[in-house]
Amino acid sequence: MANSVDPSSPSLAPKRSSDSETEMVQVVLPNDANPLGFILGGTVMHLIDIAGAIASFRHARSRVVTAAVDDLVFLHPIKVGDLIVLKATVTCTFRTSLEVRVDVYSEEALTGVRQRTSRAFLTFVTVDEAGGRVEVPPLLVETPAQEKVCVDARARRDLRLKRRADTV
Amino acid sequence: MANSVDPSSPSLAPKRSSDSETEMVQVVLPNDANPLGFILGGTVMHLIDIAGAIASFRHARSRVVTAAVDDLVFLHPIKVGDLIVLKATVTCTFRTSLEVRVDVYSEEALTGVRQRTSRAFLTFVTVDEAGGRVEVPPLLVETPAQEKVCVDARARRDLRLKRRADTV
Amino acid sequence: MANSVDPSSPSLAPKRSSDSETEMVQVVLPNDANPLGFILGGTVMHLIDIAGAIASFRHARSRVVTAAVDDLVFLHPIKVGDLIVLKATVTCTFRTSLEVRVDVYSEEALTGVRQRTSRAFLTFVTVDEAGGRVEVPPLLVETPAQEKVCVDARARRDLRLKRRADTV
Amino acid sequence: MANSVDPSSPSLAPKRSSDSETEMVQVVLPNDANPLGFILGGTVMHLIDIAGAIASFRHARSRVVTAAVDDLVFLHPIKVGDLIVLKATVTCTFRTSLEVRVDVYSEEALTGVRQRTSRAFLTFVTVDEAGGRVEVPPLLVETPAQEKVCVDARARRDLRLKRRADTV
Amino acid sequence: MANSVDPSSPSLAPKRSSDSETEMVQVVLPNDANPLGFILGGTVMHLIDIAGAIASFRHARSRVVTAAVDDLVFLHPIKVGDLIVLKATVTCTFRTSLEVRVDVYSEEALTGVRQRTSRAFLTFVTVDEAGGRVEVPPLLVETPAQEKVCVDARARRDLRLKRRADTV
Amino acid sequence: MANSVDPSSPSLAPKRSSDSETEMVQVVLPNDANPLGFILGGTVMHLIDIAGAIASFRHARSRVVTAAVDDLVFLHPIKVGDLIVLKATVTCTFRTSLEVRVDVYSEEALTGVRQRTSRAFLTFVTVDEAGGRVEVPPLLVETPAQEKVCVDARARRDLRLKRRADTV
Repeated sequence: MANSVDPSSPSLAPKRSSDSETEMVQVVLPNDANPLGFILGGTVMHLIDIAGAIASFRHARSRVVTAAVDDLVFLHPIKVGDLIVLKATVTCTFRTSLEVRVDVYSEEALTGVRQRTSRAFLTFVTVDEAGGRVEVPPLLVETPAQEKVCVDARARRDLRLKRRADTV
Repeated sequence: MANSVDPSSPSLAPKRSSDSETEMVQVVLPNDANPLGFILGGTVMHLIDIAGAIASFRHARSRVVTAAVDDLVFLHPIKVGDLIVLKATVTCTFRTSLEVRVDVYSEEALTGVRQRTSRAFLTFVTVDEAGGRVEVPPLLVETPAQEKVCVDARARRDLRLKRRADTV
Repeated sequence: MANSVDPSSPSLAPKRSSDSETEMVQVVLPNDANPLGFILGGTVMHLIDIAGAIASFRHARSRVVTAAVDDLVFLHPIKVGDLIVLKATVTCTFRTSLEVRVDVYSEEALTGVRQRTSRAFLTFVTVDEAGGRVEVPPLLVETPAQEKVCVDARARRDLRLKRRADTV
Repeated sequence: MANSVDPSSPSLAPKRSSDSETEMVQVVLPNDANPLGFILGGTVMHLIDIAGAIASFRHARSRVVTAAVDDLVFLHPIKVGDLIVLKATVTCTFRTSLEVRVDVYSEEALTGVRQRTSRAFLTFVTVDEAGGRVEVPPLLVETPAQEKVCVDARARRDLRLKRRADTV
Repeated sequence: MANSVDPSSPSLAPKRSSDSETEMVQVVLPNDANPLGFILGGTVMHLIDIAGAIASFRHARSRVVTAAVDDLVFLHPIKVGDLIVLKATVTCTFRTSLEVRVDVYSEEALTGVRQRTSRAFLTFVTVDEAGGRVEVPPLLVETPAQEKVCVDARARRDLRLKRRADTV
Repeated sequence: MANSVDPSSPSLAPKRSSDSETEMVQVVLPNDANPLGFILGGTVMHLIDIAGAIASFRHARSRVVTAAVDDLVFLHPIKVGDLIVLKATVTCTFRTSLEVRVDVYSEEALTGVRQRTSRAFLTFVTVDEAGGRVEVPPLLVETPAQEKVCVDARARRDLRLKRRADTV
């Protein structure tokens, strides 16, 4: 890959997931909602993509392009006037891509009651300004729990690549 | 389920997937794009959700709420000024939910060259105005190919329900 | 016209109106509506312009600029939560411009009842990336009905050019 | 018309067109523009509708719904970063509707050079909160020039009603 | 300042505040409002910034960047469906910046009742296309009232510069 | 004040500023920017208002309405493609209002370089669903630094009330 960064360069020094952890919060406004007064699934997806991209910027310090979304579920609706909170964490890095888990919570504006409403795993590829792929700094995996998270990410990736091979 | 529609009512008459097939097309505008000039993943997801919801309306003739997105991949970027075309087809119905496949295509404005850029499977639950679950008219499955599509949808659903049970 | 495409070039081969016919569909969201809960006239006009531009792209495969809108009427309101469906068809081509008819329909989300709510005739001029005018492939007019549609388009164009001459 | 306002009520006192004249101005932002950097026709139409509706509010002091747009032309493009100025003037009143002329100007941000880019005639019907038609205060027509403007408006209306009768 | 315009150039001829006075009007739409149906403070601030920038363009005929907002108060809420009217007036000019006062009024759509809801003083710096500072044409101050307005503007500026010095 | 909450109720228990501290982050998209590629002042103001409102929700657990913005400065521009980070902290509470400080930072997407670009002090009044004023839980002020912050907030409030009295 001609345009990849030299892996010995400082920007490819390993990073902890805490270095890129990202929290976003928004008020759900009328335009984000369906006629029942609940946030649109598509609005949540849009915010999930932004949160995941920001965590990816912070880990890779490159431009990123969304490559895949696995296993996105919506457990509870969120009402207009309440808050939507998103937490994005890098779970595993590959050569020129990385996976980010985004957890979504509702927070009732008037009570503070918070519950998880969605979880998604997004894969981003890292690119330079010309759109060419660039290498990702490795993720420092320091605990058995982090190891498990990365193993699961690899399994999702393998399943997705296998499905794509089956389709083509 | 107290608020479900009587299954013998006309609105629960079986329907073909061609009865609800939906095609959307949009020009990619600057605000939909990242600084590289390519459509944001989140914008595509938002449009996928809308296209899937419209096909669900047309099949179920009820309000719908997005419940899950499985296996969303982005194969190629789409440039500002080009067209994004989305085709949504109901693949399988369950008691109070249904699955929709959304295929996304780019169409170059100046050449007409079209290629598939994404495919996603979305599950919508069908609700009444009070938010209660309502029954879905069954999908008429008439060919072996349609049967295969529905079997795959059931497998995705079983896998998702199993994963959720594992998580809780 | 120095920057016009050679009329013998393949891209100026005649096309059928069915080659460029465009259908768009959208859910009417709260932000598209007035305080009575009906879609804004301006939102409909915006979508009409997009639909007409897409049909023009597909016929001319060039950039296009809106030049005129004739005879736009709004027959029925469309409610938040219902669908707006737009169909755009090229009616007639001129040297460096073309006319598109856009029909707008409401589709009730819960019943599927569809009625036409608007019709407009838009004229687009075809331009290259530098903004210079470029030639339009001729429209294949094959039936007396298509001939009538094109004759009417010419009459609208003549009336508009005459009015502009009167104004200046 | 059961829900119409008593014509002797003060709100139906005749008004001058200067009482409702409306001027809007906006900066053209990147999202309002096509890939050539010029404002979208649909964005201009949206602003024309808003400007016309505001002049109608100010004349009729009722809710209004857009009924028709006649003779909209786009003479010159407007660039991102420049200003769009809209002037809306009531031209003629009917029993439960009125016509508004909207002139659109570009104003170059860095030079102040202003030129007219569009003119449109919009018809709005006046409604109450329940959507029923309400009477419009008459327009005071005081000069031969104003008389001419209103006569032209009546001619556009007659032509439109005749065309609609022909179509049905 | 190497990139400043020659002060003897015509574009630096003094101007009256009436030369740049700007009036904007908008309908408050559902997306601009909170769940109580009142316009968001942030939407008002956004419009205040646009109105102030337009008056600055018209005075300086350069690009401008917002540098400060002093003393913004919100006296009354504005309801969805009513009008928001903004008037922007240049109060005082400095070497490469100027102050603009923006008054905000609500206008009830159905009654025309108008009241002032906000007032803000914004400072804009004047820049060229490369972002370098450029000189501002002086403001013609012709009456004692205008003199008082400019003296107050200087006091706000001195206070702000002093506060900034204290902070650093 | 008839509609105020009983001050002995649990929801008026004193709170720490850390209980309501709010961090937001966004990618600056093309539509948020001026033709120079820098974020609009009005977009920053809009985000400041949202961040301040969320911190107010979290402290007061009531609806809030923006009442004033004091001393907003913009120190550095933020480019399209970079991140805008906002931190909102309650500085001082009054009987039915509270002050929030919002600090704004730019974070370069490709380097992570972060610098403060704005600081603003916003006052929100706390209201119930009918728009009536409600009491605010007191802020626990535990350190001399927090005491100083609250004293400054009171001084800003006194100055603002005095200015308003002078104006009326």
